[in-house]
Amino acid sequence: MKLSEIGEFGFINRFSEKFSSLNRNEECGIGDDCAIMPLDDQHDQIVTTDLLIEDIHFLRSEITPFDLGYKALAVNLSDIAAMGGKPTASFLSIALPGDTDVEYMDQVMEGYHNLSEKYQVPLLGGDTTKSPDKIVINVCVTGRVKKGTAKLRSAATNDDFICVTGPLGDSGAGLKILLEKINPDSSSRKLISWHNRPEPAINEGLWLGNKTGVNAMMDISDGIASDLLHILSKSGKGATVYVESIPLSTALKETADHNGWNALELALTGGEDYRLLLTISSRSFKKLEKEYNKEFQIPISCVGRITEKNPGQIIWMKENQPYSLDRGGFNHFRE
Amino acid sequence: MKLSEIGEFGFINRFSEKFSSLNRNEECGIGDDCAIMPLDDQHDQIVTTDLLIEDIHFLRSEITPFDLGYKALAVNLSDIAAMGGKPTASFLSIALPGDTDVEYMDQVMEGYHNLSEKYQVPLLGGDTTKSPDKIVINVCVTGRVKKGTAKLRSAATNDDFICVTGPLGDSGAGLKILLEKINPDSSSRKLISWHNRPEPAINEGLWLGNKTGVNAMMDISDGIASDLLHILSKSGKGATVYVESIPLSTALKETADHNGWNALELALTGGEDYRLLLTISSRSFKKLEKEYNKEFQIPISCVGRITEKNPGQIIWMKENQPYSLDRGGFNHFRE
Repeated sequence: MKLSEIGEFGFINRFSEKFSSLNRNEECGIGDDCAIMPLDDQHDQIVTTDLLIEDIHFLRSEITPFDLGYKALAVNLSDIAAMGGKPTASFLSIALPGDTDVEYMDQVMEGYHNLSEKYQVPLLGGDTTKSPDKIVINVCVTGRVKKGTAKLRSAATNDDFICVTGPLGDSGAGLKILLEKINPDSSSRKLISWHNRPEPAINEGLWLGNKTGVNAMMDISDGIASDLLHILSKSGKGATVYVESIPLSTALKETADHNGWNALELALTGGEDYRLLLTISSRSFKKLEKEYNKEFQIPISCVGRITEKNPGQIIWMKENQPYSLDRGGFNHFRE
Repeated sequence: MKLSEIGEFGFINRFSEKFSSLNRNEECGIGDDCAIMPLDDQHDQIVTTDLLIEDIHFLRSEITPFDLGYKALAVNLSDIAAMGGKPTASFLSIALPGDTDVEYMDQVMEGYHNLSEKYQVPLLGGDTTKSPDKIVINVCVTGRVKKGTAKLRSAATNDDFICVTGPLGDSGAGLKILLEKINPDSSSRKLISWHNRPEPAINEGLWLGNKTGVNAMMDISDGIASDLLHILSKSGKGATVYVESIPLSTALKETADHNGWNALELALTGGEDYRLLLTISSRSFKKLEKEYNKEFQIPISCVGRITEKNPGQIIWMKENQPYSLDRGGFNHFRE
């Protein structure tokens, strides 16, 4: 049997139970955006790691080395944000072909440093080695939350409002523009920019992490259609999503119109948004929505509700009619 | 300029200073086997990460998947041992071609689990993704030491005894047997086995980490001729090494004799020994040597002395005559 037949999660399921017997009390391992380990009396430590491989996660011709360095850290900081945490340190492993230009790598490190400085995250270690051909970058980030307050995928409750912290689909559309080699105009340049240099929602995550009305939280990396299923399966709940409420950027709408693309499908299934996906208890939503808008001057968008029925399933609705989605979630081993 | 011209350490030097301004108090970043971060009132956390790439660090045809999984974790545990620490958790990132057999990966995880269980190190997270062709494995391990007691490369003092915890060169010879496709006999099978499934010196490191007479410590991953230089440059000291004191295994001596190889050169410059290299204060050495032998039933081998003169240099001696080494240290970007 080939890995492509069982996919990423099929593979993880094969070994995760066996390993879980080694976990200690208060430790939470595989299955959320970050692992949780006890730190001191008042804090837990959270840890995440992400691997980027040339020609799978990025094309060297389509991303500047500065953005590559920035993004390699950003996707990890996004996982820290997803738990409501504050990043404390990063660790960078990098494998490079021997003929890589030093100036290219200086720019990669410049981008990495730029984001490290923005959120004051020290780079405390790593590994540097040769690669036969592709650039390989693994980043591991540690963070901190108040003890017992990390926001989990498993915490959604009945009637929760399902929310996102920004427009969806920009990154997926940016990638489509790059892959289809479309001449970019000012709108599509914004989409490419979000794809290549996403901004992790660290401040938003920290703010939301401190609110008791926020139940489940995660970041959107494979598209909401795929990622929301993780919250549902961990929480044992269902969801109804009202697709007309999915926030779409002007840049996405213009570019989709111009190229005859379905903006909504890109928003639901495009990967690498790095917005936060969260559920807010129904009695806290109104107050929290108002406070959030005041704090960040952008709306938090409610796109649906958590339901007791249809556990593990998303019911898609468009203007009160059932809506059916073209594409499913992303499988890392499928062609 | 190409990376191969400046090498691994040249590259690291280009950015490490710039990043160090982000480090907080009590944090120790790039430049030792592990980073050090404050954990709680009584402990520091130590963190290490290592990246293994197919065809650079291993050949799929020459290592069983079980050993590959075992080794990927072992090389990281060795860094924890080198600081005198106890491993607390691991994080595994793995990239695989889609046509990899599930059974192959099950065996990789079996080897990883075997070593995890031996030292009770939970696997708390990671990342799984597709690779265009090569298998890529990054492991990050956290560990713990009593506050302020992590053993550093910078702590060697004048007249310290330079010691190693086991025979050197076995792994380098094992690799040579594999690369030169020599038919293995029982001796060379032992060498291949140490190359493919090295045992991290966790118990030895923990024991030595608790002794105040132990000054500098690190693990030997690039060969003592290269690694000792790190202790010397960090400590601002020189060293005299008596090559006749370098411990050589019977298996290495027999295999070298049989194939006309220089066993000593393999021991000094062969990589991936994963023995500990440490310096012990001259007044503690005798007592510590005795206690160590009692604890582990194998000798700790004194191979030289730290000197005030010749900072940054190793003076090699053989039976009271200067000895000159054929090969230098390992450069990760050179062909």
